[in-house]
Amino acid sequence: MAVGDMPEEAFRRHADTVLDWVVGYLRGSDAPVLSRAEPGDLLRALPASAPDAGESFDRLFEDFERLILPGITHWNQPGFLAYFSSSGSAPGILGEMLSAALNINAMVWATSPAATELEMRVARWLARMLGLPDSFEGVINDTGSSSTLYALVAAREARVPEAVESGLTQAPPCRVYASTEAHASVGKAVRVLGFGREGLRRIPTAGGGMDPAALQAAIEEDLRAGHRPVAVCGTVGTTSVGAVDPADELADVAEAFGLWFHVDAAYAGSAAVLPELRHRFAGWERADSIVVNPHKWMFTPIDCSMLFCRRPAALVEAFRFTAAYLRTDAGEGMPHLKDYGVSLGRRFRALKLWFVIRSFGVEGIRERLRAHVRWARSFADRVDEDDAWELYDDPGFSTVAFRYLGEGRSPEARDELNRAIVERVNRGGEVYLSDTVLDGRVWIRLSIGHVRTTEAHVLRAWTLLTEAASA
Amino acid sequence: MAVGDMPEEAFRRHADTVLDWVVGYLRGSDAPVLSRAEPGDLLRALPASAPDAGESFDRLFEDFERLILPGITHWNQPGFLAYFSSSGSAPGILGEMLSAALNINAMVWATSPAATELEMRVARWLARMLGLPDSFEGVINDTGSSSTLYALVAAREARVPEAVESGLTQAPPCRVYASTEAHASVGKAVRVLGFGREGLRRIPTAGGGMDPAALQAAIEEDLRAGHRPVAVCGTVGTTSVGAVDPADELADVAEAFGLWFHVDAAYAGSAAVLPELRHRFAGWERADSIVVNPHKWMFTPIDCSMLFCRRPAALVEAFRFTAAYLRTDAGEGMPHLKDYGVSLGRRFRALKLWFVIRSFGVEGIRERLRAHVRWARSFADRVDEDDAWELYDDPGFSTVAFRYLGEGRSPEARDELNRAIVERVNRGGEVYLSDTVLDGRVWIRLSIGHVRTTEAHVLRAWTLLTEAASA
Repeated sequence: MAVGDMPEEAFRRHADTVLDWVVGYLRGSDAPVLSRAEPGDLLRALPASAPDAGESFDRLFEDFERLILPGITHWNQPGFLAYFSSSGSAPGILGEMLSAALNINAMVWATSPAATELEMRVARWLARMLGLPDSFEGVINDTGSSSTLYALVAAREARVPEAVESGLTQAPPCRVYASTEAHASVGKAVRVLGFGREGLRRIPTAGGGMDPAALQAAIEEDLRAGHRPVAVCGTVGTTSVGAVDPADELADVAEAFGLWFHVDAAYAGSAAVLPELRHRFAGWERADSIVVNPHKWMFTPIDCSMLFCRRPAALVEAFRFTAAYLRTDAGEGMPHLKDYGVSLGRRFRALKLWFVIRSFGVEGIRERLRAHVRWARSFADRVDEDDAWELYDDPGFSTVAFRYLGEGRSPEARDELNRAIVERVNRGGEVYLSDTVLDGRVWIRLSIGHVRTTEAHVLRAWTLLTEAASA
Repeated sequence: MAVGDMPEEAFRRHADTVLDWVVGYLRGSDAPVLSRAEPGDLLRALPASAPDAGESFDRLFEDFERLILPGITHWNQPGFLAYFSSSGSAPGILGEMLSAALNINAMVWATSPAATELEMRVARWLARMLGLPDSFEGVINDTGSSSTLYALVAAREARVPEAVESGLTQAPPCRVYASTEAHASVGKAVRVLGFGREGLRRIPTAGGGMDPAALQAAIEEDLRAGHRPVAVCGTVGTTSVGAVDPADELADVAEAFGLWFHVDAAYAGSAAVLPELRHRFAGWERADSIVVNPHKWMFTPIDCSMLFCRRPAALVEAFRFTAAYLRTDAGEGMPHLKDYGVSLGRRFRALKLWFVIRSFGVEGIRERLRAHVRWARSFADRVDEDDAWELYDDPGFSTVAFRYLGEGRSPEARDELNRAIVERVNRGGEVYLSDTVLDGRVWIRLSIGHVRTTEAHVLRAWTLLTEAASA
């Protein structure tokens, strides 16, 4: 039996097949955006065990088209307006092709100096694009959840020094503060850290963002109880509706009590490239750490979450290790990326971000984000002007929350109606929206961020929503 | 200014350029395997800020070739014999191309049913290939470090129930046991968990693997001290030399004390496809969790770390969350992958593994691994037969540790000499080896695992080593 890789001619031919398909897919797919698969469809279609003999790629690709594609929800089509959109943009895909071919692991500087240094450089580029000072260093993680966890590990090690050697059993109960609208990843991180469910203290919002007075009162209460306040997690651009915590005021509170200040701007952070929206971020430059995901609203294929840290030494202090099998003596003055988080192995993620930023240029990225913000506002205007619908709030970014009023219905019946409207629209397959709960009630969400979405898709969503509401 | 993505014709043309390059790269590169870049080379070559205007991809690709490639250490070339080899194999690269184009996020079942179900199915395939019972469910994480962390979080939540609500301050000091040869990721995970540096208890080895008697004694001592033993982490295939902890005996001890038993087989786990090596894994089927990285020795591009769990409910118990913005009511009976670890966002990683397994077939994977094991043994024989060299131990898998004796030298001088030999060989650029420390002394490592490595590369490494030793 032959060993080695697929023969070159076969690879070339199959890669052409794949590429033809990709080109057609980016041109546009007629498939429903939300998959219509039933639970277990694919499981039933695939054998329970792997094949003993190798199979031709033609057959695999046939199965990809016949079995996999019907079970795909099309995040990379312009009708995707649910959650937060992400884009496998053309330059990003080209970057991923090269990353897969190089297949490097930039765990230490020497195992690919260019990958480490390109990550440093695109982090600096991005920081400057977003108006952050050069004192922020950035590293790329897989997801915002990981970035937030890593930041909070650094926060714990800095704020609970007695735990570094002996663990948390030697420490008082620890507390992390986030608003009731903060992302679930904060709660997950707090639990992983060993603070328990009680370790996350949810602060109410006032005027959309976390209430700084309530935050201060909670910290003071915890201090009186002998607890250890560790970190404040602010959000710029909440998941439900893109609301903004007042970073400057949160920074004041965090500073006054000596807490770590982390800002989750995973989605909206990209919008700081727009000078006209920069004021919404005022004070985030005072954070100890900030997460911004170019794989959300900056056209970079998943995964690419940038963790900026103003105190990178604290991150390194928490994660650095030495191992006999991993020499770090090459690369004088350069970082070893293994020291900045949990993962030792690291894909070459900086390449796709570099391609995306250079291909579109900072101005090109601005124009695309501006268009999304403009379309979101004009969608919100339509909602606002229609008496049958209600807008939750003026959209600050590209995410709109709204609902059908359904006159005369109870709040519960209205919730049900709005869920039914979303489901009807989604079943149609042209666009995909999601919903959320705000102040205890259901609201529909429309979020624009895909690089190939046009205003026509947004207008079509509105038509489909009004049709669904009258049906 | 135009918005949207790169125009179709441009994408097609640039993708052809990239593909031509990839085909040539897989055919073989003349570049030194270990990059010769100096610290800061790339940083100095790139502007400090991103360009305002978009640039042509031709220019980007020119920079990729001119600036990035010289700073790449070529993990995906057959002369890479350092650390643990990984492969961007042709079918794996095709899988990554499609994943990047689909750019899905399988956070819940509905956001791409096929991605969730394919992950379940390839996990089952892999478990059966490795001789693990169907009671193990698998999920794919980015790296082994993440997989081990997630397993140990589940272990903590199961073994330290009082911490779930109130955090570790309510619990006694917690302990995790691993051998002195265990991977650094275990220590990282223990620290992230809040157990402190003292939370990891290193157990000495006996005959290469962790000493079960010493493990038992340590647990008993900790119990007497009022500590809480949480988990035993065994290793099948240590990083330094591929040594094996006696899983069956460790399972006995873990069971006797009711501890979570985790097995790190990130590298060597793939070798369980070989019936003739299966005995080295005896007892791992009694583990609560096992990590095997197909992105190491199964030809799948990084990142693809499979975390098998015999108690998936414990994993879900630790990581499940609900969020208003993320409905989970579709997909009756199906898992939501967000509930199995820290990351909410999930790349479509199962696709590349599916392509690799089907393209090569189980027998094809066996033949490739067999060849690697055979070449490692014949390399070890050469070392063993040469009086100027010493073999650390018979290689159980495809990793060999050995050293040049350098007659009459002090142990320190011999260490220095061996490091100098490795550096000389690596500077030559034809192959890339690493080194490690075993029993306090330096040993050279050669590890075979790349899909396009042939016996000629291994023989060439031996020639280069003997030449370097005589120089």
